[in-house]
Amino acid sequence: MSTIHPPHDREADPRVKAVFDDIRSTRKADFINNMWHYLAFDPALLEKTWADVKAIMATPSALDPLTKEMLYIAVSVTNGCGYCAHSHTAAARAKGMTDAQHADLLSVISLAARTNQLATGLQVPVDPAFDADRRS
Amino acid sequence: MSTIHPPHDREADPRVKAVFDDIRSTRKADFINNMWHYLAFDPALLEKTWADVKAIMATPSALDPLTKEMLYIAVSVTNGCGYCAHSHTAAARAKGMTDAQHADLLSVISLAARTNQLATGLQVPVDPAFDADRRS
Amino acid sequence: MSTIHPPHDREADPRVKAVFDDIRSTRKADFINNMWHYLAFDPALLEKTWADVKAIMATPSALDPLTKEMLYIAVSVTNGCGYCAHSHTAAARAKGMTDAQHADLLSVISLAARTNQLATGLQVPVDPAFDADRRS
Amino acid sequence: MSTIHPPHDREADPRVKAVFDDIRSTRKADFINNMWHYLAFDPALLEKTWADVKAIMATPSALDPLTKEMLYIAVSVTNGCGYCAHSHTAAARAKGMTDAQHADLLSVISLAARTNQLATGLQVPVDPAFDADRRS
Amino acid sequence: MSTIHPPHDREADPRVKAVFDDIRSTRKADFINNMWHYLAFDPALLEKTWADVKAIMATPSALDPLTKEMLYIAVSVTNGCGYCAHSHTAAARAKGMTDAQHADLLSVISLAARTNQLATGLQVPVDPAFDADRRS
Amino acid sequence: MSTIHPPHDREADPRVKAVFDDIRSTRKADFINNMWHYLAFDPALLEKTWADVKAIMATPSALDPLTKEMLYIAVSVTNGCGYCAHSHTAAARAKGMTDAQHADLLSVISLAARTNQLATGLQVPVDPAFDADRRS
Repeated sequence: MSTIHPPHDREADPRVKAVFDDIRSTRKADFINNMWHYLAFDPALLEKTWADVKAIMATPSALDPLTKEMLYIAVSVTNGCGYCAHSHTAAARAKGMTDAQHADLLSVISLAARTNQLATGLQVPVDPAFDADRRS
Repeated sequence: MSTIHPPHDREADPRVKAVFDDIRSTRKADFINNMWHYLAFDPALLEKTWADVKAIMATPSALDPLTKEMLYIAVSVTNGCGYCAHSHTAAARAKGMTDAQHADLLSVISLAARTNQLATGLQVPVDPAFDADRRS
Repeated sequence: MSTIHPPHDREADPRVKAVFDDIRSTRKADFINNMWHYLAFDPALLEKTWADVKAIMATPSALDPLTKEMLYIAVSVTNGCGYCAHSHTAAARAKGMTDAQHADLLSVISLAARTNQLATGLQVPVDPAFDADRRS
Repeated sequence: MSTIHPPHDREADPRVKAVFDDIRSTRKADFINNMWHYLAFDPALLEKTWADVKAIMATPSALDPLTKEMLYIAVSVTNGCGYCAHSHTAAARAKGMTDAQHADLLSVISLAARTNQLATGLQVPVDPAFDADRRS
Repeated sequence: MSTIHPPHDREADPRVKAVFDDIRSTRKADFINNMWHYLAFDPALLEKTWADVKAIMATPSALDPLTKEMLYIAVSVTNGCGYCAHSHTAAARAKGMTDAQHADLLSVISLAARTNQLATGLQVPVDPAFDADRRS
Repeated sequence: MSTIHPPHDREADPRVKAVFDDIRSTRKADFINNMWHYLAFDPALLEKTWADVKAIMATPSALDPLTKEMLYIAVSVTNGCGYCAHSHTAAARAKGMTDAQHADLLSVISLAARTNQLATGLQVPVDPAFDADRRS
């Protein structure tokens, strides 16, 4: 079940094909997951989304690739995105996440959700010491 | 502004004092942030919350302390918890998060929120390849 | 799978039948989607919900019907409501939403989610110029 | 700070005055909280919102008034609505919520948030036994 | 579909078996729902989660068991957790929730979501009267 | 209060200055709101964010500028982003949103939040008729 019907012969569109080729080449794998097949209904949106994902997730930066996947999982789970929880957990495992790291990840994100509720429920005032604007 | 009024002479309660002493000792600092002052309205809830935070965030585990703080930020920001965004960003900085890592963290969590919306908007079906139950 | 079991012979209840008849008449269609079948477990809740939806979505107002459907999608996707994403995307298409508008809708709501995370992550202070209370 | 500027002489509008009078009479108190002052920018929206709140929260029903306020708090905190956390905690206290009940409420809603993350993170399949549609 | 594969012979692990036995004994039922089967991939996380759930949900406290289940539902629905909506609705029914209470619960949590949006959309300032810190 | 301290002499950095100049030129206004001042702590993140906002919000597309602002508000309010509710309501007003349209917008997004809760609370199964994958 989905809200759009992806085009049947997607790679006949040269813009779609170019993105799919770059996904395969970047990931060094033939498999293209459903997200990209469905985004292909609008080649411009497909191009833009892949460009973003590639620039942030597949390019060396200040955080290592596995940390970035785990952050992605944290946001996806908090947003209740089932597809994203599945795809990024698979990606984190492919990047080496162990069962112990997975359990630790789930412990931290569920603890954070728990204390978020407490801070919001109590409407705790922000400590002046936390205000970065005070620094100079 | 808050929804409860913390007790005036909080540390007169030996259960509150014991938790506050353990926070100071664990963190090697005198400062106790507002979250704990407000939770002191119910010593049992204070004890339970600190026990959880200490066990997960202040105990060596499969993920390093800074990664855990950044995951905490990812959840807190996604849940829109202002107090938590402040307190855990301060904690991450205290654990060595650089400006470059902070910017990278914000890039990843905002990208995740963006593609979460796309996957949910399209209701992309989960790829069978992502189903861990299929593994054996 | 659902959390309640809708009554078998729903339209035998005259309150349910009256609502279903009004849905068919308002929408000029025989089809009644599952939302209403399941709400029929409580006729008062069914009546109240349909009255609200009819008053806001099926009555001429300051915004045109397609814009209202797209706003509905924006909220539903942000809340992660799969049923609602499906039903309101179908409704928007029935009201003329094109593929290009659909792609534009997804671009805007995913951009908004992205910058929401940035503003919340940075805890950007509200500009005094945005405060409507200052106007007089 | 707010996004609209409420009309200066609100009760000069007879529709606004009628709602405000009914709020005072229903609550047996002169105080009218900001929510209603700001909603007064659109008398129809004010009328509709108060009618809903009165019908559900100020009318005897299957759940007692304090339970309904606590459910309201649970939703408001989960949605991160600071205004609502404040106003409904005050309302719950006015209806007799004790400190012990408040602490229990916070324990339950923070536990729920914690296990929500675990179930979503693991994408636990729904047990067939939970499917009400199977009942007949 | 799930993101982890639970161990095949789960109860061969004495820590898992001890938790499962305690669940059966506490609930006076043989049935163990999927949440616990999947959490069994990490015995420490399983133990911790069950200890929390038992301490808060299966221990007499200031709120009665049915109220606590309904609060759990309110949070789970607001977070969009399908598994949790299913499991806690089944639990509430087992604890005696009637159809009328169920409908009332849904009325309150959907009203709360509606007025949360209004308060956040208007950015209504918190009334000083709601500030518990002002009390002394 | 914020979680980062924006650089004092921001426009001394040519990358920041180029973005600020483009914002002023695109919006035909001198005023630059806080979001951009705070993002200036990381020029690459500032450039990327402005490029996205400009491409989607300030470029003619399938939806008109006011509709796009209202969609932005719908997402921002649902996510509980106070800064974003303020900035995009101001932007929508600058693009001509009337009080009647504002009230209509709030009616639709609060109705959507209400029925989202009902659909999620009932776990209503998606009607096969809504499945776009069935179309061919």
